[in-house]
Amino acid sequence: MTRLELRRNPHDDKVSFEVEETSDVRAWAADEPLRIVGQPHPRVEGADKVTGRALYSSDQRPPRLLYARVLRSPHPHARVRRIDTSRAEALPGVHAVLSSANCTDVRWYQEQSLLFDPHVRFVGDEVAAVAAVSGDVAEDALRLIEVEYDVLPFIPDLQTALRPEAPLIHSHGRYAGEPEKYERGDVESAFARAEVVLEQEYVTQTALHNCLEAHGCTAAWDDEQLTLWESTQSIWDVRRGIADALHLPQHHVRVIKQYMGGGFGSKQVAWKPTAIAALLSRIAGRPVQLLHDREAENLAAGNRSPTRQKVRLAARRDGTLTAIDVRIDLAQGAYVAGGEVAMVDGIYQSLYRCENVRTARYAHYTNTGPAVAFRAPGFVEGAFGLECAMDELARVLRMDPVELRRRNYTTDEQSEGKPYTSPDSLRECISRVTHAFGWQPHSDTGANGQLPAKRRGVGFAVHNWIGGGGHPPGYAWIKLNADGTADVVTGTQDIGTGSRTGLSQIAAEELGLQMSQVRLHLGDTAYGPYAPVSSGSATQATIGPAIQAAAADVRTQLLDAAAVILECQSADLTVRDGDIYLRGVGKRCSVAEVTSQVGPHMIQAEGVRAPNPKDKAVRTFGAQCVEVEVDTETGEVTVLRVVASHDCGRIVNPTMVESQVIGAVAQGVGFGLLEERVVDARSGVVLNPNLEFYEVPTVADMPSIEHAPHGVPDVEANSTGAKGVGEPPLIPTAPAIANAIFDATGVRVREAPITRKRLLEALHARV
Amino acid sequence: MTRLELRRNPHDDKVSFEVEETSDVRAWAADEPLRIVGQPHPRVEGADKVTGRALYSSDQRPPRLLYARVLRSPHPHARVRRIDTSRAEALPGVHAVLSSANCTDVRWYQEQSLLFDPHVRFVGDEVAAVAAVSGDVAEDALRLIEVEYDVLPFIPDLQTALRPEAPLIHSHGRYAGEPEKYERGDVESAFARAEVVLEQEYVTQTALHNCLEAHGCTAAWDDEQLTLWESTQSIWDVRRGIADALHLPQHHVRVIKQYMGGGFGSKQVAWKPTAIAALLSRIAGRPVQLLHDREAENLAAGNRSPTRQKVRLAARRDGTLTAIDVRIDLAQGAYVAGGEVAMVDGIYQSLYRCENVRTARYAHYTNTGPAVAFRAPGFVEGAFGLECAMDELARVLRMDPVELRRRNYTTDEQSEGKPYTSPDSLRECISRVTHAFGWQPHSDTGANGQLPAKRRGVGFAVHNWIGGGGHPPGYAWIKLNADGTADVVTGTQDIGTGSRTGLSQIAAEELGLQMSQVRLHLGDTAYGPYAPVSSGSATQATIGPAIQAAAADVRTQLLDAAAVILECQSADLTVRDGDIYLRGVGKRCSVAEVTSQVGPHMIQAEGVRAPNPKDKAVRTFGAQCVEVEVDTETGEVTVLRVVASHDCGRIVNPTMVESQVIGAVAQGVGFGLLEERVVDARSGVVLNPNLEFYEVPTVADMPSIEHAPHGVPDVEANSTGAKGVGEPPLIPTAPAIANAIFDATGVRVREAPITRKRLLEALHARV
Repeated sequence: MTRLELRRNPHDDKVSFEVEETSDVRAWAADEPLRIVGQPHPRVEGADKVTGRALYSSDQRPPRLLYARVLRSPHPHARVRRIDTSRAEALPGVHAVLSSANCTDVRWYQEQSLLFDPHVRFVGDEVAAVAAVSGDVAEDALRLIEVEYDVLPFIPDLQTALRPEAPLIHSHGRYAGEPEKYERGDVESAFARAEVVLEQEYVTQTALHNCLEAHGCTAAWDDEQLTLWESTQSIWDVRRGIADALHLPQHHVRVIKQYMGGGFGSKQVAWKPTAIAALLSRIAGRPVQLLHDREAENLAAGNRSPTRQKVRLAARRDGTLTAIDVRIDLAQGAYVAGGEVAMVDGIYQSLYRCENVRTARYAHYTNTGPAVAFRAPGFVEGAFGLECAMDELARVLRMDPVELRRRNYTTDEQSEGKPYTSPDSLRECISRVTHAFGWQPHSDTGANGQLPAKRRGVGFAVHNWIGGGGHPPGYAWIKLNADGTADVVTGTQDIGTGSRTGLSQIAAEELGLQMSQVRLHLGDTAYGPYAPVSSGSATQATIGPAIQAAAADVRTQLLDAAAVILECQSADLTVRDGDIYLRGVGKRCSVAEVTSQVGPHMIQAEGVRAPNPKDKAVRTFGAQCVEVEVDTETGEVTVLRVVASHDCGRIVNPTMVESQVIGAVAQGVGFGLLEERVVDARSGVVLNPNLEFYEVPTVADMPSIEHAPHGVPDVEANSTGAKGVGEPPLIPTAPAIANAIFDATGVRVREAPITRKRLLEALHARV
Repeated sequence: MTRLELRRNPHDDKVSFEVEETSDVRAWAADEPLRIVGQPHPRVEGADKVTGRALYSSDQRPPRLLYARVLRSPHPHARVRRIDTSRAEALPGVHAVLSSANCTDVRWYQEQSLLFDPHVRFVGDEVAAVAAVSGDVAEDALRLIEVEYDVLPFIPDLQTALRPEAPLIHSHGRYAGEPEKYERGDVESAFARAEVVLEQEYVTQTALHNCLEAHGCTAAWDDEQLTLWESTQSIWDVRRGIADALHLPQHHVRVIKQYMGGGFGSKQVAWKPTAIAALLSRIAGRPVQLLHDREAENLAAGNRSPTRQKVRLAARRDGTLTAIDVRIDLAQGAYVAGGEVAMVDGIYQSLYRCENVRTARYAHYTNTGPAVAFRAPGFVEGAFGLECAMDELARVLRMDPVELRRRNYTTDEQSEGKPYTSPDSLRECISRVTHAFGWQPHSDTGANGQLPAKRRGVGFAVHNWIGGGGHPPGYAWIKLNADGTADVVTGTQDIGTGSRTGLSQIAAEELGLQMSQVRLHLGDTAYGPYAPVSSGSATQATIGPAIQAAAADVRTQLLDAAAVILECQSADLTVRDGDIYLRGVGKRCSVAEVTSQVGPHMIQAEGVRAPNPKDKAVRTFGAQCVEVEVDTETGEVTVLRVVASHDCGRIVNPTMVESQVIGAVAQGVGFGLLEERVVDARSGVVLNPNLEFYEVPTVADMPSIEHAPHGVPDVEANSTGAKGVGEPPLIPTAPAIANAIFDATGVRVREAPITRKRLLEALHARV
């Protein structure tokens, strides 16, 4: 049941093969009456977190722990001509020093660079590191390190990168990877024949993840065995990354992550602090802890690429899209760190029914920290372009923007040509959100006549998202204890989204136990089976079905045992809430009464995540309406209200779905109005690598956020019918706000964030 | 393959059923050419231990850790009339105080008592406990606790317990459990017809385990979840014991044990320090560590029961035993703690072929710490009686003691009537040990004539042992990593015997990997599958076959995958030392080249320990010859030489087998000559709860120890053919020494330890 099926791939000349996980678990029907799944169970780890008992990676205090600090490049582009760490090494309390002088063989950033590269490529690039008995001593030691640099010409931003005379950062060229080009149909002739053409450029700025918990690690060696307490979205990728970089076998590296204060895509791989802590620990012979401070975090631990999107839409007068064309330029920063390149083109290719689509995406190196995935990477940036452009098209056509989306609705994944498993869910989201919001397209707002200084407007945007559906491989082991409680062992991680709770609900439901009788284990490569990175809103839809499969197997064994004891047929038995019921008779015994007699033998089973359907596409969808108030005198935008409707298939826990919607909308408000890393073009220095001048939304910025859930099980997606919703509600928020600002003011700002400065400039330009 | 088969037991009126684990792993043949199993691989954790990196339970330092100390009864039997802990509670730095005043509902010692029982029953019984910021503060607090006792009459020792007027310690009676009575054949008429009768009384004294690491625990709560870092032989029994006592569900208790400084049978269950630490931690809201000091360890953490054995042997003049009769009295101490009652009668019932056998065993309560299992419990004490008596019988019959054993050899388990799976192994051990020793029975030594003050003699003894064979349930999970390394996940524990290494060898052998490519995980109830207590020398023979089964499954999947890649039949592939070979061709690729293509999918499998044969008995056997030198003027006995031959089936690691033999013989020398807890009969106070006056053998007491291993795979016992050897080499040492002393001096000392005082008294009595 849980065996891999190995097949040679007939379409592939190379030696490679597909792996098929098989599972015969019965899927829950769409109308399955469930007892625990669907309930708003509080987070199982909630009390630990709010009382401070939950120990994060940097709360670890192994005996003889040392603390590390890192010296970073003050130049955006330079070569280290000379480095002298001898005074730092001599400082009492210093136990290990690493730099390009003594660490030359650890490759980093996809082999483009070194852990301590004498060629530094952004302000914040690692130059040296010290482990000492305290952080203060380590910082003192950093000040004793002498470095002389040869300063090189640099690229501070995307605008500069686009210039032909921009310097080369890497010898292999100006682009991070080959430009991505895609075309279907005949775009040029569609534009030639178009009844209406809209052509605009949209710009998005660099956003910083700003996880509450920075990147960091506590590292300790036992002989040849390295243990890493790591803040990560993927304990297994950290294991592999560190094993590869440090030339260790994977089973000599153990990665543990129990709690995390946010990742948002920035913690999918092994980052430098982990390798540095591991090496310093190796040298010092003592555990070492290295946690980014906020400045390091905001310089060197990832960001959302800034983009320029040149968009052309062709349509008939009735609103039917006939062609979409976009050229996307984005800044990759100085390196490819290992998180995904942003799929800004994805939403252009797939959101609307359109025969003729062309996209081109160019990722430019810049002398800034490496860009990585950030919650719905690419789709957030792409949606700002596409969904603003659609709103502009609706204005041109004098159509209701909602109606324009319905006109171009697709039930198929356009680029793959497969029908969606949930073809109606975006339509349903649009209906629910417009109904809940009371959507009324405003009449043509404009600059005509005298209007009050404070004006209100409404905006709308939709999205799809490639994530949320999950995928193999996913595994779970379940052990039924003698007292009828269950331990569910997985190798996944809860990145703060509530996976512990939702997955426990799935286990309890299928096992027929109470929530309190189930404990989910995760976050330790030594013990759990493999699990993929927790990204793409995939965790629940990847691991949930594996847990369901293991639980179904355990339940079968349990009822077989109960049938022996009760002298009946197991087919006549059911289990729920920890009790076993006989058909036509009622409750016969508790689960514990059976398991106590099976003990010391243990009922246990493995579960595996079955493949996704081959001929259909599993996607998630959503729509949002927003209302804003714009003070045209100050440029201040107040988001009054956001109503969101998102498709996540079966809702396992409505509270947690709502939490994700609220959190994502909050980040969407930040992306749309506030968040922007500012690089001084003359010096290449980041002016706001902090939370004072890099503005994230606070509680004062929060609108009323209402969720009108879709909540229809996607029974073709996987056996639980549930999909993830961690990322998608961030996608449509910023364009919906931009569209609402236009609705309120008649002014179109095509650059996010729509800061007061940008809005005032636009308002003044119109006047 | 790994499913439980559940059957109702047809012979049992009660609702109960048998569980059958099934496994179709191919057993290694007796002459199987193995590459890794059988090699003297060094301990995989050896470097960690000798460098101090290995963290034991009391090395844990969770943040905000408190240290606990315990107030113990100074009286052997009393009632607490009044206890006032208020001054202790008021002491700055004290965070929690427990006593019978505030902890009334935690039952202990098989429900015979309470965790803090106001009725104290031995010197050292727990009266109160304090958790404070340091051990010093906790000790200061203990001195502030006021206790008034009503002192009761008490039983200091077995001798007193045997008197009719002895006071009652428990209301349910003087015996700990019903007396165990056994009889086969017709013992009385056999004695009536006997040609020779030997009748003697043998006495053994209380021995203390004196593990290098005392009992102790570090306890921490996360909300409702209790984590215990515990020094234990059974993480699962500690989990169950603490869950039961503290009314917690089992999945809320996690027990971790990575390293241990000895258990020897004394750490099979949850002991009071663990429950006390858990409760103090609950009250204080901070982690608490409680580690026995040596005095507490030697008062309250178990001991080997003292015994009196009244033995009668009936034989024909040719040495054939016709009847065995023994009455055994032993002191249980004040409570039944949960370790086994010593099976002193077991060796009388089973070692020799004899139709008429009667045993009776009485466990008397005494006002001393509870007796528990101690390395080959019961058989060590019983062998002292039986094997001294056999030597005496040989002297009476003027037979070679070795010949007498051969005359009464059995190939069947006598009490169960089943043939042994290794019917020849004791015979083989006798041959090997007498050959290696150069056994020559001395001519009749005696007191006749002038002899030198220092005299040498030789002694011989044999044994069988019910342990070593292992048993279901045993489980293992194996994960094959993308780089071809393997993680083997079990729920067992390495109690210092080298299980990590031996089990890793079995895994590497069956997987076809190098030792360095395998890592074994154990010692954590949260993650591993269930495993029984590590006792009865059972760990390797219980878990090893489960690992072998899982590894065989993984290997099959691996070769199936390799066959797809290599385009051949998997039946033509083999894997060894991490490489894959094609029949008739040679090496084709490494394991990593296959697994890297399977990844991110993971080849993994579960393995289960198959049942023991139903119609045969799995046992271990051994024989030892010793030579001693006795100084008849000082009574000093020097053991010059011990040669041992023990049957452990297939030898997985010869170095570790030899280590076990050496360690066990050392404890046997202690048991035979030195170790004795002394209780003052007038006060009930233990006079030597320390390592100054309780004498364990030191390096100066060690003889030359030579192992002449048997080493024939017991292919009927389990699929690996290996059995455990942790306990048995302790069994024959003391009687062989006693027999050698007689051989040297002509004086028979029938009480162990044969201290200088006892030997001198015996020598003087003869004169």
